[in-house]
Amino acid sequence: MTSIADPEALIRSEDSNHPANLICSLCRNFYTHGWVTGTGGGISIRDRDEDHDHVFIAPSGVQKERMLPENMFVMDFSTKQYLRTPPALKPSACTPLFMAAFTKRGAGACIHTHSQAAVLCTLMSKGKTFSIANIEQIKAIPKPSTGGYMGYFDTLTIPIIENTAHEEDLKDSLEKAIEEYPETCAVLVRRHGVYVWGDTVWKAKTQCESLDYLFELAVKMWQLGLDPAGPITPVEE
Amino acid sequence: MTSIADPEALIRSEDSNHPANLICSLCRNFYTHGWVTGTGGGISIRDRDEDHDHVFIAPSGVQKERMLPENMFVMDFSTKQYLRTPPALKPSACTPLFMAAFTKRGAGACIHTHSQAAVLCTLMSKGKTFSIANIEQIKAIPKPSTGGYMGYFDTLTIPIIENTAHEEDLKDSLEKAIEEYPETCAVLVRRHGVYVWGDTVWKAKTQCESLDYLFELAVKMWQLGLDPAGPITPVEE
Amino acid sequence: MTSIADPEALIRSEDSNHPANLICSLCRNFYTHGWVTGTGGGISIRDRDEDHDHVFIAPSGVQKERMLPENMFVMDFSTKQYLRTPPALKPSACTPLFMAAFTKRGAGACIHTHSQAAVLCTLMSKGKTFSIANIEQIKAIPKPSTGGYMGYFDTLTIPIIENTAHEEDLKDSLEKAIEEYPETCAVLVRRHGVYVWGDTVWKAKTQCESLDYLFELAVKMWQLGLDPAGPITPVEE
Amino acid sequence: MTSIADPEALIRSEDSNHPANLICSLCRNFYTHGWVTGTGGGISIRDRDEDHDHVFIAPSGVQKERMLPENMFVMDFSTKQYLRTPPALKPSACTPLFMAAFTKRGAGACIHTHSQAAVLCTLMSKGKTFSIANIEQIKAIPKPSTGGYMGYFDTLTIPIIENTAHEEDLKDSLEKAIEEYPETCAVLVRRHGVYVWGDTVWKAKTQCESLDYLFELAVKMWQLGLDPAGPITPVEE
Repeated sequence: MTSIADPEALIRSEDSNHPANLICSLCRNFYTHGWVTGTGGGISIRDRDEDHDHVFIAPSGVQKERMLPENMFVMDFSTKQYLRTPPALKPSACTPLFMAAFTKRGAGACIHTHSQAAVLCTLMSKGKTFSIANIEQIKAIPKPSTGGYMGYFDTLTIPIIENTAHEEDLKDSLEKAIEEYPETCAVLVRRHGVYVWGDTVWKAKTQCESLDYLFELAVKMWQLGLDPAGPITPVEE
Repeated sequence: MTSIADPEALIRSEDSNHPANLICSLCRNFYTHGWVTGTGGGISIRDRDEDHDHVFIAPSGVQKERMLPENMFVMDFSTKQYLRTPPALKPSACTPLFMAAFTKRGAGACIHTHSQAAVLCTLMSKGKTFSIANIEQIKAIPKPSTGGYMGYFDTLTIPIIENTAHEEDLKDSLEKAIEEYPETCAVLVRRHGVYVWGDTVWKAKTQCESLDYLFELAVKMWQLGLDPAGPITPVEE
Repeated sequence: MTSIADPEALIRSEDSNHPANLICSLCRNFYTHGWVTGTGGGISIRDRDEDHDHVFIAPSGVQKERMLPENMFVMDFSTKQYLRTPPALKPSACTPLFMAAFTKRGAGACIHTHSQAAVLCTLMSKGKTFSIANIEQIKAIPKPSTGGYMGYFDTLTIPIIENTAHEEDLKDSLEKAIEEYPETCAVLVRRHGVYVWGDTVWKAKTQCESLDYLFELAVKMWQLGLDPAGPITPVEE
Repeated sequence: MTSIADPEALIRSEDSNHPANLICSLCRNFYTHGWVTGTGGGISIRDRDEDHDHVFIAPSGVQKERMLPENMFVMDFSTKQYLRTPPALKPSACTPLFMAAFTKRGAGACIHTHSQAAVLCTLMSKGKTFSIANIEQIKAIPKPSTGGYMGYFDTLTIPIIENTAHEEDLKDSLEKAIEEYPETCAVLVRRHGVYVWGDTVWKAKTQCESLDYLFELAVKMWQLGLDPAGPITPVEE
């Protein structure tokens, strides 16, 4: 393990925007959305500056709405060594997946949810992707090839990978999906949930909320016999 | 920019009903309703008094449940110049739409939501309007031609305008709908959301909540095979 | 108006269970349930003791989640005169209905909600009553003729009265329903909501929550093609 | 009654994780989930140490979101005598059911909810069990025969017992189900709710949340015409 003078200093801060504090307040928020029920799901933040490149990882098995800064793991991104390890806890099983978003996309944060709407979208979409088109909220999703965001008239397509017995075994197919869908900021996992990342923690949160909104809307559209990926129908006079 | 001695004084107040504080607390409230998911939607308050006529506008791209008074833009209504501009932020893309409600209707506040129920009502209503009839909550909606409110036996009709690629491009059709439907306090935007205004911030909030209640109820009625705009059926003995 | 030395003393108390404080905290709670959206619905508490018999009534048109003790009306039950009237406010339009529950049933509190589940139950029930049977939560509903509570194998029947243009015009039909259904602790109002009362404020709240739970469950049963009032089907081996 | 020097010391603690405090904060949490509506449902925690074996039981009929430590009953597990009895309250009618989980399974906590999703699962499942398969959240459910947890490819089966007129009469059939389904950590009660237990209070909570997530998901799957216990369908190319 990389030695560091005072590992506790990594997670102690009065600043509510410090990653160790932010993971706790965001997990409380995610809990109210039903995204991290039963200690499922999680979030990791990469804190990069001139003199450090740290990854903050929440522990496995802790009640998400009761998470505390002292529960956090801190990893040195370059050496992949833990700078701080809380006693009697294991890092989230999602860690290799979070790392894929940091490594393959240079993400600043990655969120994993067990959102029921996400799971239902993977059940209703029989193929390798979920699509939804012509909804204003799509404009919150980035389009890296342009440096900007998707347009209202665009069709949003999120890849779906098949679930595996062990979470860490998703790594290869997640990395493959990231490569095959260079525009995507998220990967759905069939019968499991979704991984969403962003350049910053706030972008990751905005994108995760916007995608979940679209997943929920799609489910309601299916319930009403509407096709989420269908065309805009002409206005009846 | 119109010069003002101390722009910070415009947004600093201990009064929880001061527009800069109220926008923050209302955005937290709206967030719990799912109206401003992923930094979508927003609210603008017009603060008129004998010696001033200011428009408070929330910034674009800020997490709605974490909004702070120092994030607020303040515009002088008569000159349309910003009296206060927070650093590194842009005013909400809805600003021209909010201004339409202030200019065309003399509104005291305008709320824009991405409510999923509103979006679903625009998908289920194939024509240029959404209608619902004979529900008590309709009585919360004003009827300007009478100076009073709608009645229980009235049919509420809200115009629907078509969405555009850029939010500011909605301005012309929103203004046209406001003119064509002189009784309406709201305009739905297809596949996007709704704009609701009122004489005061509290009336705007009451009307926005009541309309959203009616949108949600309509969606549940469709799910159960009922027609929201249908007549009252005779009571079976 | 009955004269009283210090009307303000009627609504000032450090006790969180004082009616003026309780109406505020319960209205915040009801708001989160979607029962009092858009300033609709309300609650009235009757505070009886050896030396007084007061009715606390929330004002009309105030945001329910922002209600304050100083907004409360206090009426002397025997004289029907207001002992305290907050400036610039009107008592809830539900007041005659609340009074019917106090007068006809000796209730200690009456709650009126615009619950969407209640409205949907009045739309799905074509006759003069709503019924649901064989659900554990029914046991929270009192059965006055026995001095106890309903049983699991009982069918709960709530009368439905037709809505009127003006809320106060519901009084006669509400009183008639109270008389015709001596066992009921609630009356549904078609396309409007529900009135629920109880011997104490806590019993009224428990009964209102339990009924709303049953209304919601009935709606979900209809969505799944199940009959809320149907018999228990034999268990398949 | 077993005599104890200071019964009040059993429920007074500054520690938020003390059972008397935890029952209160968890009941507030459960209330927001709609699990303990109308004072239904409840939780009991068994606090075992070298020198004591106490069962903390919430009272019957108290508003769950307003529960206080002084409302708690404390029972000595070995003698089944109450060490502390709050005045004017009765212990939860679920007490014999909670005791079954402590006695038959050595549970550290047992939660009883009236979750509507649980009730709907017992209505949609016509036989003696509810099943759901191939959903990630199933991995939060223990598999005692292996000392570990269920796998993603496993089918989760929860026994359903028939409801009775009186809650305490469920004891025999609950104990029978516990014996017949040695792998289960929960028993559904038809048209009533669910009992869930775990080795510790946190495991009981995680399992209760995870099961409720699965019950909700199953209901949504049925609404969309999907079979919760069906096989994983091949991916369409």
